[in-house]
Amino acid sequence: MLIPLERRGARPVFRQIVDYLRRAIEAGRLAPGARLQPIRLLARELGVNRETVADAYRELEALGLTESHVGRGTFVTAARATLAPRAAVAAGDAGAVALAERPFTPLFSRAADAVAALPVLDFASDARAVRLDRVVPDAQLYPVDEFRKALARVLARGGRRVLDYGDPHGDESLRRVLVERLTAYGIEAHHEEIVVTGGSTQALAITARLFCDPGDAVAVESPTYPGAHAALLAAGLRAAPLPMTDAGLDLDALDALLARGGARLVYTMPTFHNPTGIATGLEHRRRLLEIAVKHGVPVLEDDFEKDLRVRGRAAPPLKALDRAGNVVYVGTFSKALFPGARVGWIVGARRTVDAATALKRTFDLTTSPVLQAALAQLCTSGVYDRHLRRVAKELERRLGAAFTALEERLPSGSTFTRPEGGFAVWVTLPQPLDTMALFPAAKQAGVVYTPGQLFHVDGRRSSSLRLSVAQCQPDEIARGIRVLGEVARAALPARASRRGGRAVASVHV
Amino acid sequence: MLIPLERRGARPVFRQIVDYLRRAIEAGRLAPGARLQPIRLLARELGVNRETVADAYRELEALGLTESHVGRGTFVTAARATLAPRAAVAAGDAGAVALAERPFTPLFSRAADAVAALPVLDFASDARAVRLDRVVPDAQLYPVDEFRKALARVLARGGRRVLDYGDPHGDESLRRVLVERLTAYGIEAHHEEIVVTGGSTQALAITARLFCDPGDAVAVESPTYPGAHAALLAAGLRAAPLPMTDAGLDLDALDALLARGGARLVYTMPTFHNPTGIATGLEHRRRLLEIAVKHGVPVLEDDFEKDLRVRGRAAPPLKALDRAGNVVYVGTFSKALFPGARVGWIVGARRTVDAATALKRTFDLTTSPVLQAALAQLCTSGVYDRHLRRVAKELERRLGAAFTALEERLPSGSTFTRPEGGFAVWVTLPQPLDTMALFPAAKQAGVVYTPGQLFHVDGRRSSSLRLSVAQCQPDEIARGIRVLGEVARAALPARASRRGGRAVASVHV
Repeated sequence: MLIPLERRGARPVFRQIVDYLRRAIEAGRLAPGARLQPIRLLARELGVNRETVADAYRELEALGLTESHVGRGTFVTAARATLAPRAAVAAGDAGAVALAERPFTPLFSRAADAVAALPVLDFASDARAVRLDRVVPDAQLYPVDEFRKALARVLARGGRRVLDYGDPHGDESLRRVLVERLTAYGIEAHHEEIVVTGGSTQALAITARLFCDPGDAVAVESPTYPGAHAALLAAGLRAAPLPMTDAGLDLDALDALLARGGARLVYTMPTFHNPTGIATGLEHRRRLLEIAVKHGVPVLEDDFEKDLRVRGRAAPPLKALDRAGNVVYVGTFSKALFPGARVGWIVGARRTVDAATALKRTFDLTTSPVLQAALAQLCTSGVYDRHLRRVAKELERRLGAAFTALEERLPSGSTFTRPEGGFAVWVTLPQPLDTMALFPAAKQAGVVYTPGQLFHVDGRRSSSLRLSVAQCQPDEIARGIRVLGEVARAALPARASRRGGRAVASVHV
Repeated sequence: MLIPLERRGARPVFRQIVDYLRRAIEAGRLAPGARLQPIRLLARELGVNRETVADAYRELEALGLTESHVGRGTFVTAARATLAPRAAVAAGDAGAVALAERPFTPLFSRAADAVAALPVLDFASDARAVRLDRVVPDAQLYPVDEFRKALARVLARGGRRVLDYGDPHGDESLRRVLVERLTAYGIEAHHEEIVVTGGSTQALAITARLFCDPGDAVAVESPTYPGAHAALLAAGLRAAPLPMTDAGLDLDALDALLARGGARLVYTMPTFHNPTGIATGLEHRRRLLEIAVKHGVPVLEDDFEKDLRVRGRAAPPLKALDRAGNVVYVGTFSKALFPGARVGWIVGARRTVDAATALKRTFDLTTSPVLQAALAQLCTSGVYDRHLRRVAKELERRLGAAFTALEERLPSGSTFTRPEGGFAVWVTLPQPLDTMALFPAAKQAGVVYTPGQLFHVDGRRSSSLRLSVAQCQPDEIARGIRVLGEVARAALPARASRRGGRAVASVHV
């Protein structure tokens, strides 16, 4: 125990020791039952007289904070210790550079302030509410036992290797698995054209930093993934929003933006776009790529839900169509498997991947090799593919329940998307509803969704919202959507909610 | 298998399928023995005639790339597939946006270029060489079995919870363990004043971004940890180097720098400084903190080897002396336990930690909760403290062997530090030796070290070098230092190596 002591001060050393330990016990940092260091050891460590420590221990006991047991030592009493509020903790002063009249007021960077200023919504609700907000796979489906076995296996076989830093490009066993999986997606990549990252969020942050200097703009879809926007702000970058159509990113708008040098990078989610669920067709992909090639601008393809298709035929990823080397492809295990491993990847031209790897080192040196090796093991043993089949079946039921309920329960004049996979459905309620304004009432009534406004980098009002079927059973989804319909109807102006003419429309995306 | 097809092109679809699969097999992306998709499934997935796929499969077999087994399917032949060089992979063109006349030449950001331009040294050597370069704990000491058990336990108890994203501040079980450990260091922190990070490197990167805008300078020790320099460059920041004395950072130089507004943040390693091993005393720490408080500048205290003390009495961390809230304290499990979990932490004032957590989310959302929970388990079960005792005993032997060998084997006029813990010893050879120039000869002769030049942000020539005792047994350390002495003597000018007057000097740090 290293108690900071002020030896030249007015307060006796004995009193300083008592105060430090008293604060630790009262704040719960020393838990009930914890044994204090033997007097002899603490005296030596602090360079003080044993009698000084003994005095302090006697005082603590007199205060009822500790109990001595002859021959066993001094223990924190079992009385309920509470976590003290910060004010009490700050009262400490022993040996410190006090200058209490000059408390440090942190002045954060512009980027940190911009990130902190992003809107935050309190999604937490009571247990009854149907949570249609989280795009996180259902924990009930996680292959926990298989993952435990995979971890045990890689630790038994190569424990020392996988507990070292590992290769900054990523564990080679995982990169070879990814090469095989990418081949099945139509992407021809060498394992040295891959770098493993801390989830796809880190992949986005690295790629943005790789191509953009502070102040540069990145073209993004509007609506888009708010986490990408936050990553851009943290890097001192701006997002240049481009409209989405039912067929995907508005390509004429993209062409015009790039023609005037308005973006250094294009960030896009061509498959199961977040939040709309739109998957673009082959022709859209070809044209997007042609525009990027024409203007010499790199494209960041975020394929986060690639493995969550439940029907229809997939168009090849942009990366599969890319021969010039413009596309940086990003994937993750977080949506189809579980997010807790924090493993994603970047695929790109060798030179791009090498530069990305150098940046990756400045983010966190490497991604945990033990988790990477265990995920590779899940793939080679067939667990991952079996898991995907199970998830697809379940997801089809959930999306189906959502589509049915949306058709039946939304106020007339609403529209929604019918994605062929992924977790998200994009619902647009009739004007003049504002889904951010509606949020508290919906939460109160028992359904939680994500208001559309959070997906627009310009923070515009929105009558749309994202529903995620990830976490709920079909019957819960149906119940949540019924509640949503009721709340929306109640909020509509009387004439609008009475008008029954227009039906609910859906669009296959 | 999603093969990108060009349906309007001149090349038959059958040929495009053959080419894609041939490249995949020749490049090893489809491994020998791998089963191709059944004809029916692939035809459906690609939206082509079954006969087209059957033709393609027949062609592949004719090329000797696959074998068919009636009733079982088509398999890649067992002939040795080799990983094709990139040129062969790039030859693919099926359905792609070709524009081969316009290959994308990535233009990286200034920050990415600056990071890529950092000097890189090839430390890899043949197996005989003594590796005194890596500051990475000896894998032979890793508690692999205990970690496997801890992982199994947290997955059995809370598998679903620890495989979700988890709290961006970090797993609460780990933060509570850290609160207890910090109390023993003299640091009074609440668990909400901690954010868990992807190792200390991520902690440095976050903290730099938190306080500094692009173009700002951070005061660093010279020499300093090169990874910190890289993280600053990646964030678009500059390093302002300050001299080190045997007692630590030159505080007059720091005071002068801060007085003229020359740094927005001070980065320091007061305990077992990398690369010199210097641990500063209480008075130095107090004064450093007074200077920072006086100028209102935050201090980033990197305490990466805190738990590796083998003798002497520790001065309290700066954070333990900090009442104004200027200090952001960073720790890690990478040096005292193992680096493969990639877990570190930031401790700071609540407001600072909240802002750091918002930035952390843009780096990678969260650090793997399963690893955090397993590390907490290692701590609460006593494994970590037992491990530290074992490591300290071993480290004492290794440092002792190094000190003895350095006294006996270095050329006269050399000096070295005698740290009270940590892995690194800082050796200064007589002028005019340049340890970067000497490196190839030393590696060739059988000893690998880290040249001093790599620790100076201005890249200046250096006659110093860092020796790490982390990875080697005492007898190897002695052998490596003997070789180092021989190589140094051979490189000295004749008159200097003959001159036997001045002895080798060491300084207790």
